[in-house]
Amino acid sequence: MAIQKIDHIGIAVESLEVQIPFYRDVLQFEFRGTEVVEEQQVRVAIFRVGGVRIELLEPTNPESPVARFLKKNGAGLHHIAYQSDNIGEDIQSFLAQNIKMIDEEPKSGAHNSRIAFVHPKSSGRVLTELCQISSEK
Amino acid sequence: MAIQKIDHIGIAVESLEVQIPFYRDVLQFEFRGTEVVEEQQVRVAIFRVGGVRIELLEPTNPESPVARFLKKNGAGLHHIAYQSDNIGEDIQSFLAQNIKMIDEEPKSGAHNSRIAFVHPKSSGRVLTELCQISSEK
Repeated sequence: MAIQKIDHIGIAVESLEVQIPFYRDVLQFEFRGTEVVEEQQVRVAIFRVGGVRIELLEPTNPESPVARFLKKNGAGLHHIAYQSDNIGEDIQSFLAQNIKMIDEEPKSGAHNSRIAFVHPKSSGRVLTELCQISSEK
Repeated sequence: MAIQKIDHIGIAVESLEVQIPFYRDVLQFEFRGTEVVEEQQVRVAIFRVGGVRIELLEPTNPESPVARFLKKNGAGLHHIAYQSDNIGEDIQSFLAQNIKMIDEEPKSGAHNSRIAFVHPKSSGRVLTELCQISSEK
């Protein structure tokens, strides 16, 4: 078990263009550009502050999970992802402690990462992701 | 302007006792104990991971801001706080960029910190706090 840090914080937004200036110009975080993550049906704007990424998530499809989140909750904090050094082991450790996982096996994330979400029922309704990265963005 | 890191992430919970085990035993974050923060009318459980605090917030009063948040949204991610080295200067810089602040002057936070909240209208509905600490907890 080896969660050493927060990997990123995901923030649901209606429009990247509207929200990027707050993070880039006001908070003055390092802006790493935007990209489309097909698996999650989002366009992402990536910032870094103190070794943690802040990711703004704009849905590319009205039926995607982030679009449904926006419809239900409006824009705002969406999920928190912790960096795992061994995601397979961490998932097994969670399951052994009766933690319900959305993903009992790691699935593919952006940049060849492997990710798994904890079920919100087991995490006090905080959407919690484990993320094992293959290379830093 | 000098935001170097995330100071803490605030998570609204119905019950500290129910949620502490997930962070302490499953995620195995360093548990720093609980305390009451009178100004915010919350009981807080404090964890650390990678130099960032995770703070679980349980209301002590049914009319407090966190209690109202729970009533409206349910438990979940509540706010993100960034460490400021000069909060007075940062607030002025924000205001000069037409950012609406809840607190145009810093107010007292826990542990002699000085804090100020950005108005959610200016931060894409992410409750965003600036926090200048006097000593690390």
